[in-house]
Amino acid sequence: MSAPGPYPGRVTRLRAALRRRGLSAVLITHLPNVRWLCGFSGSAGSLLVSARDVVFFSDFRYRAQGRRFEYAGGSVEAVAAAVRHARVARLGFESDRMTVAAHGDLAAALTRSELVPLCGMVEGLRAVKDPAEVALIRRAIAIAGRALAVSTRRLAGKSEIAIASRLQAEIRREGGDEESFPTIVASGARAALPHGLPSSRVIGGSELVIIDFGVRLSGYCSDTTRTFSPSKWDNKSKEIYRVVLEAQHAALTVIGPGVKGRDVDAAAREVIERAGHGKHFGHGTGHGVGLEVHEQPVLSPRSGDTLAPGMVVTVEPGIYVENFGGVRIEDMVLVTETGREILSRRIPKLLER
Amino acid sequence: MSAPGPYPGRVTRLRAALRRRGLSAVLITHLPNVRWLCGFSGSAGSLLVSARDVVFFSDFRYRAQGRRFEYAGGSVEAVAAAVRHARVARLGFESDRMTVAAHGDLAAALTRSELVPLCGMVEGLRAVKDPAEVALIRRAIAIAGRALAVSTRRLAGKSEIAIASRLQAEIRREGGDEESFPTIVASGARAALPHGLPSSRVIGGSELVIIDFGVRLSGYCSDTTRTFSPSKWDNKSKEIYRVVLEAQHAALTVIGPGVKGRDVDAAAREVIERAGHGKHFGHGTGHGVGLEVHEQPVLSPRSGDTLAPGMVVTVEPGIYVENFGGVRIEDMVLVTETGREILSRRIPKLLER
Repeated sequence: MSAPGPYPGRVTRLRAALRRRGLSAVLITHLPNVRWLCGFSGSAGSLLVSARDVVFFSDFRYRAQGRRFEYAGGSVEAVAAAVRHARVARLGFESDRMTVAAHGDLAAALTRSELVPLCGMVEGLRAVKDPAEVALIRRAIAIAGRALAVSTRRLAGKSEIAIASRLQAEIRREGGDEESFPTIVASGARAALPHGLPSSRVIGGSELVIIDFGVRLSGYCSDTTRTFSPSKWDNKSKEIYRVVLEAQHAALTVIGPGVKGRDVDAAAREVIERAGHGKHFGHGTGHGVGLEVHEQPVLSPRSGDTLAPGMVVTVEPGIYVENFGGVRIEDMVLVTETGREILSRRIPKLLER
Repeated sequence: MSAPGPYPGRVTRLRAALRRRGLSAVLITHLPNVRWLCGFSGSAGSLLVSARDVVFFSDFRYRAQGRRFEYAGGSVEAVAAAVRHARVARLGFESDRMTVAAHGDLAAALTRSELVPLCGMVEGLRAVKDPAEVALIRRAIAIAGRALAVSTRRLAGKSEIAIASRLQAEIRREGGDEESFPTIVASGARAALPHGLPSSRVIGGSELVIIDFGVRLSGYCSDTTRTFSPSKWDNKSKEIYRVVLEAQHAALTVIGPGVKGRDVDAAAREVIERAGHGKHFGHGTGHGVGLEVHEQPVLSPRSGDTLAPGMVVTVEPGIYVENFGGVRIEDMVLVTETGREILSRRIPKLLER
């Protein structure tokens, strides 16, 4: 048996959250939530957390991995038997993660229990990271920084795909497990696509190149973006870049405990709108990062989230001008008791004072 | 405008399938299904197919990519407006792909339409590949074969992670877009884990090494497994290997149009059971491969699927002995009008006659 680690404490916090909702049990089906609660890192598994028990469900392939938990097969019948055994009258389920069909199967098998929809309960707990989680994120960012430095020494004359491949190889060489999402390398007019996957386009000299990528390390993700100008800046590129840099600085400066996600967004958006580029910034300013690249909290105009110490978020304003190009600059930030720490501060930015 | 390609024909087939179910419209939310129907390759988008229209929904990021379709934003309100505009009384939805929460939001917005659950409709159409799809799969397999040959020249003394990293780099070098799933390299006793991700374990001499990996090319996947013995065979390893090879041969031989998925599984399983290893073969014999690594049809004891010309399936029996090791051998097979073609026949297997 391995040491229990952070898992019993997390289960205790989940049980408290359940009690506040008048529930005693929940079926967790979203894999990052299962992983956060019990450490399981496979590709198929779910977890029943009731007042007394934690039961893990998975198929044959993960039998051996499942040994540290009470293991009960992977079928809906196995879940129903465990729910009956725990005498659960009202069972919470993750309504934003379970399909209509799976819900129908579960409801049919659970003739004596009521299914109660829950949304974002474990995700809300996961938003606040413990020191060990922050340490993994720091290491993922450090790997990202080293991989980026080596892979971008020369950009002009190389294809976007070549840069992305090099990044991928350097991530592994530096000890990262994998990319946390498909690397974005978008150059020239393609930089106006906020999510441009790398193409065979060869990078020129006087143009913008957006590189947005992440490292996964023991499940935890980094997510950072830098925009490069391979040789000379033209005036328009430089102007856009400076606006995004200023917008990012404004958003970073307001981050702290108790601040609303929408106020962080507004700080960046105001700078970009004042510069006349409001319509060129179509996405939110940032999002939480942890076991998933996109998780709670959300920093966007309509976000109802409030920052708390231990949260890790991105700040990534951008300007995208069709048929010209674009700029995005993205850092990762830890919310502290008194303000913020920019976790990716050692990854250099162009034109920074 | 680019050429319409295969998409109008696929939409026509979907409309015919809808009519057989008494429906005139469906909302497609599963991304591989969206891609198959209209070519969209982004990470967020859905498609309304009604009797007359095809409407594409996505967010800001894919505005530019969405130009080849009628584009209508990404909100549930946009979907509801399009459904109203098409005067849809009963709207099919993918019940095994849509979450309970998304269904609730859609039902609330669609006050005048009934939502009708559908399961696997587009997946059933996708199971039969057209020649262009088979050609992409052939190319993905050819890349996989070359990458594997280079990456396995010497195994003993290298870590599982080193082998996986090399494979990943070779896939890119050979022109593959990415891995179609996380590469499995499982050596020694770890080969008893059917889905063992690569570890830092250094591969020894007299042991079994399972390498299961795939290449993605323009969306289409390969999925093949070979088991290696880095230097000398011990008797037990050789015995298990020969049983798996024989089981695979038996399954491959029965594949053809009109054959049941469960009969292909039974052909492999019978050989393994006869050799006394029935309890060491806990997964199904195979599955369809295309835009997803796992798709229809299923080759397992409980499968109700029947093979048809144009289907592409894996055949991958295995034996896993705890605290010893395991063997899995996986080929990809095209069902033809008269029988089968083993698409991965050029990737060599040990001990093959």
